[in-house]
Amino acid sequence: MLNNEIAERLKIEYPIIQAPMAGGVTTSKLVAEVSNSGGLGMIGAGYLTPIQTREQIREIKQLTSNPFGINLFVPNEFNVTESEVKSASEVLNPIREQLNLSRKDDFEISRFNNAYETFNNQVKIVIEEKVPICSFTFGIPSKEVIAELKQHNIILIGTATTVREAIENEKSGMDMVVVQGSEAGGHRGTFMDGYQESLVGLMSLIPQVVDNVSIPVISAGGIMDARGLMASICLGAKGVQMGTAFLTCVESGAHKVHKEAILNANEDQTLLTRSFSGKWARGIKNKFILEMRKHEEFLPDYPVQNTLTQDIRKASAAQNNQDFMSLWSGQSPRLAKSQTVESLIKTIIAEAKKINSYI
Amino acid sequence: MLNNEIAERLKIEYPIIQAPMAGGVTTSKLVAEVSNSGGLGMIGAGYLTPIQTREQIREIKQLTSNPFGINLFVPNEFNVTESEVKSASEVLNPIREQLNLSRKDDFEISRFNNAYETFNNQVKIVIEEKVPICSFTFGIPSKEVIAELKQHNIILIGTATTVREAIENEKSGMDMVVVQGSEAGGHRGTFMDGYQESLVGLMSLIPQVVDNVSIPVISAGGIMDARGLMASICLGAKGVQMGTAFLTCVESGAHKVHKEAILNANEDQTLLTRSFSGKWARGIKNKFILEMRKHEEFLPDYPVQNTLTQDIRKASAAQNNQDFMSLWSGQSPRLAKSQTVESLIKTIIAEAKKINSYI
Repeated sequence: MLNNEIAERLKIEYPIIQAPMAGGVTTSKLVAEVSNSGGLGMIGAGYLTPIQTREQIREIKQLTSNPFGINLFVPNEFNVTESEVKSASEVLNPIREQLNLSRKDDFEISRFNNAYETFNNQVKIVIEEKVPICSFTFGIPSKEVIAELKQHNIILIGTATTVREAIENEKSGMDMVVVQGSEAGGHRGTFMDGYQESLVGLMSLIPQVVDNVSIPVISAGGIMDARGLMASICLGAKGVQMGTAFLTCVESGAHKVHKEAILNANEDQTLLTRSFSGKWARGIKNKFILEMRKHEEFLPDYPVQNTLTQDIRKASAAQNNQDFMSLWSGQSPRLAKSQTVESLIKTIIAEAKKINSYI
Repeated sequence: MLNNEIAERLKIEYPIIQAPMAGGVTTSKLVAEVSNSGGLGMIGAGYLTPIQTREQIREIKQLTSNPFGINLFVPNEFNVTESEVKSASEVLNPIREQLNLSRKDDFEISRFNNAYETFNNQVKIVIEEKVPICSFTFGIPSKEVIAELKQHNIILIGTATTVREAIENEKSGMDMVVVQGSEAGGHRGTFMDGYQESLVGLMSLIPQVVDNVSIPVISAGGIMDARGLMASICLGAKGVQMGTAFLTCVESGAHKVHKEAILNANEDQTLLTRSFSGKWARGIKNKFILEMRKHEEFLPDYPVQNTLTQDIRKASAAQNNQDFMSLWSGQSPRLAKSQTVESLIKTIIAEAKKINSYI
């Protein structure tokens, strides 16, 4: 049951995809090691420049001859005025003070506007470098981009948080779709539905999506071990995408404070917040999330808020201070382990066989 | 794998428990039919008087010789002043007007205070009538009540929404624990943790609970068919409790408007609200939920708000108007069907065998 159409299509041994976590987590070593261990490693290229994107692709090619993939953030329109940016940045000044950072009062709006150019360059690089698999978050790219990628035989994977979004992905030509349950850590991929309405648990989401699309479904959110993999397959998914489980692996580039926060957390310590980036995301509750709660609904959209908090997140990490870092985590931190990628994947396959024998 | 320790202990054929939905859904016919079909029927006695409780137990005994169970609401302390009640009721007056109900301005607080007496009388009746299984929602009963029920060999089932709550249930002497995922319809059983923190999806919740308690775990929330049953078992649960799936059955006492609302809903149309009862609960988005949103955090706790909205819910139902009814539903309404209990259970078992053969 693991040697299925997804594994076959992606040319991997097991239908286990490492979630493309952006922000330095998906080191070349992590991506390559996942692919070398029979899963699919994925570059989280959301925050990479085109040059960095090409460099990382080339680096990974040196480390594995197995297929790997890349994830791109689809740029979204956003509206913001100088004064909104100013007042959002002012809200952050007391936090800057706590971190001994200098105040910030003026931002040029033009800073936020290069997302489309970056995206288009990244698409070009994916084609030039012949990356075999490309996934998307925060929306569906234009018809032209999809057509161009398909012409180069690149397998396309969309992201959906509701049935409607999954159907839209299928219509657009995506070959597979990741369905992200409310359990998932990091950013919500929601792009059509309301924030609250699209927080659907995987036990509900997978079968309802499967009944309404014909492309293969990959489940994501809170999956950490063979139990989640086998449950996903029972629900109708053909594979899993795991984030937090790979984030705490030794090969991941996540900050040690971030890894430790997950390894010490319980299932009732994550919250959804839009204070870090302007988009809703799940992370371990810390001082930043709690202090920003009262401002949450007035903050500017992604990517503006993300840029505004950059100095804070960076300084907090540099000071090994978890208070103001984005400690993204799914709802299963009790299942996280510090281990190698190889050990994680081997254990999953061995345990999956056991479940298979008693079920 | 379905003929497991839960089925054995509860003396049922399949580990499928019909959720004890209060408010008229669990008719004697529904409860008896579930037990006659090999599952466990459960009376939702939360809103019943002691006399009604005894009557229904006796009625069900006439309809089945198989075991059935009962669920009681554990009373919670609450604080409310006359003026808080008055202003909460005033908020409801414009809605009363839309339903041609007379305004309400004064409520005696004493009306809300008989929960402890009702609960103690219900416990006495459960013992006298020898109901073999008793479950609890909204907390854990006193040591004395637990001891007395156990002395009469009644199997006790607690409800938990987090690992901590499950551990507390095990410590108290519960024989099994229902873990309620964020997918679940109706009232959240949360009694220790914060509202948001305890909204954990089953994909995350089941394995983390299973790793931390030794009593059998029953999963609840969004489970509608064999896929959810088999997934729950992969995750470590020994059985499932299904609400919405039974609510739309022909034997259920749910209002036809309620059944139709579920049968026509999508997965992204439910919301959590505390406007109906003062406790958080998941239902299909309607006019009442949306109009009350701005008042939500100021409303009095359960059972006060529940009593205040009683005339509104009743009138809305009498007028076949779904706008102001509590349309409780889990996150899988697309999987709901209008069918008999027998057909629901038979289909689940047949499909479970199919999943078992291909997995």
